[in-house]
Amino acid sequence: MGGTVTVKIDLVADLGESFGAWTMGDDDALLDVLTSANVACGFHAGDPRTMDATVRGCVARGIGIGAHPSFPDLAGFGRRAMDLTADEVRTDVLYQLGALHAFATSHGTTLSHIAPHGRLGNLVATRADYARAVVDAVEAFDPRLIVLAQDGELADHARERGVRVAIVAIVDRAYRSDGTLVPRSEPGSVIHDQDTLVARTVQMVTEGVVEAVDGTRIPIEADTVLLHGDGADAVRNARAIREALLRAGVVIAPVTEVLAGKEEKESASCPA
Amino acid sequence: MGGTVTVKIDLVADLGESFGAWTMGDDDALLDVLTSANVACGFHAGDPRTMDATVRGCVARGIGIGAHPSFPDLAGFGRRAMDLTADEVRTDVLYQLGALHAFATSHGTTLSHIAPHGRLGNLVATRADYARAVVDAVEAFDPRLIVLAQDGELADHARERGVRVAIVAIVDRAYRSDGTLVPRSEPGSVIHDQDTLVARTVQMVTEGVVEAVDGTRIPIEADTVLLHGDGADAVRNARAIREALLRAGVVIAPVTEVLAGKEEKESASCPA
Amino acid sequence: MGGTVTVKIDLVADLGESFGAWTMGDDDALLDVLTSANVACGFHAGDPRTMDATVRGCVARGIGIGAHPSFPDLAGFGRRAMDLTADEVRTDVLYQLGALHAFATSHGTTLSHIAPHGRLGNLVATRADYARAVVDAVEAFDPRLIVLAQDGELADHARERGVRVAIVAIVDRAYRSDGTLVPRSEPGSVIHDQDTLVARTVQMVTEGVVEAVDGTRIPIEADTVLLHGDGADAVRNARAIREALLRAGVVIAPVTEVLAGKEEKESASCPA
Amino acid sequence: MGGTVTVKIDLVADLGESFGAWTMGDDDALLDVLTSANVACGFHAGDPRTMDATVRGCVARGIGIGAHPSFPDLAGFGRRAMDLTADEVRTDVLYQLGALHAFATSHGTTLSHIAPHGRLGNLVATRADYARAVVDAVEAFDPRLIVLAQDGELADHARERGVRVAIVAIVDRAYRSDGTLVPRSEPGSVIHDQDTLVARTVQMVTEGVVEAVDGTRIPIEADTVLLHGDGADAVRNARAIREALLRAGVVIAPVTEVLAGKEEKESASCPA
Repeated sequence: MGGTVTVKIDLVADLGESFGAWTMGDDDALLDVLTSANVACGFHAGDPRTMDATVRGCVARGIGIGAHPSFPDLAGFGRRAMDLTADEVRTDVLYQLGALHAFATSHGTTLSHIAPHGRLGNLVATRADYARAVVDAVEAFDPRLIVLAQDGELADHARERGVRVAIVAIVDRAYRSDGTLVPRSEPGSVIHDQDTLVARTVQMVTEGVVEAVDGTRIPIEADTVLLHGDGADAVRNARAIREALLRAGVVIAPVTEVLAGKEEKESASCPA
Repeated sequence: MGGTVTVKIDLVADLGESFGAWTMGDDDALLDVLTSANVACGFHAGDPRTMDATVRGCVARGIGIGAHPSFPDLAGFGRRAMDLTADEVRTDVLYQLGALHAFATSHGTTLSHIAPHGRLGNLVATRADYARAVVDAVEAFDPRLIVLAQDGELADHARERGVRVAIVAIVDRAYRSDGTLVPRSEPGSVIHDQDTLVARTVQMVTEGVVEAVDGTRIPIEADTVLLHGDGADAVRNARAIREALLRAGVVIAPVTEVLAGKEEKESASCPA
Repeated sequence: MGGTVTVKIDLVADLGESFGAWTMGDDDALLDVLTSANVACGFHAGDPRTMDATVRGCVARGIGIGAHPSFPDLAGFGRRAMDLTADEVRTDVLYQLGALHAFATSHGTTLSHIAPHGRLGNLVATRADYARAVVDAVEAFDPRLIVLAQDGELADHARERGVRVAIVAIVDRAYRSDGTLVPRSEPGSVIHDQDTLVARTVQMVTEGVVEAVDGTRIPIEADTVLLHGDGADAVRNARAIREALLRAGVVIAPVTEVLAGKEEKESASCPA
Repeated sequence: MGGTVTVKIDLVADLGESFGAWTMGDDDALLDVLTSANVACGFHAGDPRTMDATVRGCVARGIGIGAHPSFPDLAGFGRRAMDLTADEVRTDVLYQLGALHAFATSHGTTLSHIAPHGRLGNLVATRADYARAVVDAVEAFDPRLIVLAQDGELADHARERGVRVAIVAIVDRAYRSDGTLVPRSEPGSVIHDQDTLVARTVQMVTEGVVEAVDGTRIPIEADTVLLHGDGADAVRNARAIREALLRAGVVIAPVTEVLAGKEEKESASCPA
């Protein structure tokens, strides 16, 4: 085509994870950084008041709202595996999607995406039955929803069935040369240093590569970058990443726009 | 006008009030009797599997599906008053409306109505703030939803704001001459005899009157008749009521049709 | 040996598995059959009113009361595996033990045993960390509690640490020649025929053997027989088993007495 | 008698009000200030891990452990009235008492007291049926437990039935001349200034009087002073109060010792 190619990226974080009298994360600070939010739907966090306030905050800043469904485990914050049947996953996801949808509707907007939370989010990458159950719920409720996922079963199943997928870059975790994450139990699995974080993120987004733990450079496709809001460092890092991306000429936009831009490019590059 | 006037009535009952391993009521039997169902949304009963199966059963028989939101009180089955703020009522109702809506959508249909459950259902008749909160939720989520209520604050607020109301006849309860129900604590408050039940119902529906405990005949407007499915008698009574109404020439139809028919008549009787 | 040996056996079933407005099982009928009860503690079933009434019923008939702790999963009735840490199992079990203990105390009695419920009950037979966690809770709360278990990790750990164990005979399930149960997914795994059930039970209790699916006779030690109360057949079967055992001269007694009798015999047979 | 009279007071706060992944209050800081703790029991806060850790922390510092039972309302933190029957209050309290007792037992200690939480704590001061239900639970579970209460129905019922009562001084709230608290909705109802707080507390404890909003000095009997741990100011104020009491020669001791000292004095002053 010639000319400059604009790189677009979405910045997303988990939001609305307070519950009743308990607060979690610094949602207000994150709202100034993000373009999309994964909003808790009541099963691991997020009572109806928190959901209402979180959606209101997102709408006020034009942030894309996604459902963040979980295993039904408030005491475990959705971090513990539960051996649900695929049908239990499908119906639990439908329930949570609908509940958040009601708040989106009441604030005059619609949901843009879905991103399974915690342990469910891990399992959909490897369990085909759970991946299928989530896509079943999406198809049955609103097939325009974008599925946020890392590479894995969920991403594969969604694409096969024509549901759009946005690949999430986990910028604060070390990657192996096969593209999987180094487990948290291993040393060096989590990246804390802000400069390293920022440099890795910019490289992932602008060059499409990340340096694995063994030094090899592996390709990584990213539509959205996962940020965190828990702890003062997290918010500072999120801000630094945003600023560095802007300085690098990257356009930061909600995931719907990122995918729309990509689809345009793809169709433009197809032979007539 | 001349000619025959067709009387239409809806038959409604609470459905989907099982939870997990526990069963309540004989939903299968009721599905053959009803034209509308108030479906539990998870706060007093109705886990996601139960909601899914209940909605499927309603769709298969063309039964209108309504949300039956409750106070968040599984252990108390929503029968215990909770001193929520109006905003807590509004957001709890929105959450439950959305959750049920997801199952309706996934089965290719939409919600027809809303009928607050249990103690919340009692309180919206007398607490203006709760009535307003429910109508706020309906307006914000889907203003086409019909509000099922007895006469009282909820019915008044809904009408004032242009939300359609269907008046529920409580055919198994004794009425006072002021149109209110005789409290359950008083003798004779509940009508068990099937013949009496059937005769009262037919009279309420076809003549628009009910005999109060002091013998006076009071006017009663009814768009829907509330039936029950808990216990063998309940289902037998429900069937007897349905058959008697059909024999009396009454058309039994979902509440949306009942109201549509009424609106047509009203507009027809207006001077051009 | 000379003289008659009296065989003693306990009859146990899960009780108090109603919740709020929902009823499960025919507890009243079972109370006339049992000598011990595994009482739900609120995590999979059993709200405080149900616990109170169940304990009252047991005390009135001299039935031994045991805790029936579960994974925290009301919607799944404790039947779904949850990947808890061992410390989460220990603390969840302590919580439930204490809660039931309060009702026992308030009715002037003490707990006799503990029998983990549902999926937790399965897992403690094979997961050493969970078995240890349950024994940790028992030791810390009341080391006199008897652990009801099938052969497996829980029974082994309890014995090693001096906690008494009562082995549960699962009389309505087919056994393999290695002493494990035939999985429910295989045909013939569950025994429904009353005559077969009764004959097997009497043989297990009086002869200490059971016929495995391949026809071999395997030894089985049983201190208590697990009965069920869900469904009319279950209660009829439970009664038939009780009567057949009595006719065979077996003494039916709470698990504490069964173990006490056994310990006496063992110490009597030791050389002075 | 001649000689000096030693004034003893207990310092108490609500502890263990975290839940799962959510933290509330600065329990570690408070543990250095308190002599007693009201520990959440799972109904408004306090999962089993939190309860275990809180009890361990109290035992390590010799802090008296009390149950802090609540209405079953996690989303509302027990601050919303629920229209429970007295029997529901009694059984909910028993359940929570037992659960916390298990952790006390497992750490080699016993419960010293009970202090109903939040809205239940307010209602037991005015609803005789709830007050009776709490005392019923205490009598049935452990009649040696001390009831922590303000003047009101609970304190009256407990005393009538021989259950010991410790009166709680609410030092950060304005009192009316009739001894009741100025409602939070009125200006000046909460005292924030540290010097005022400290002076009032010392006066209440050493002189047994407090200045009401109309300037009158009213008598106040206090066995324990309620402190808070939510917010940096709260902990600073708690420390300042402790230090001022020590400087004033007051002995700070668990509520059991405070009441024991008082009973000794009373019996000493009785004619032989």
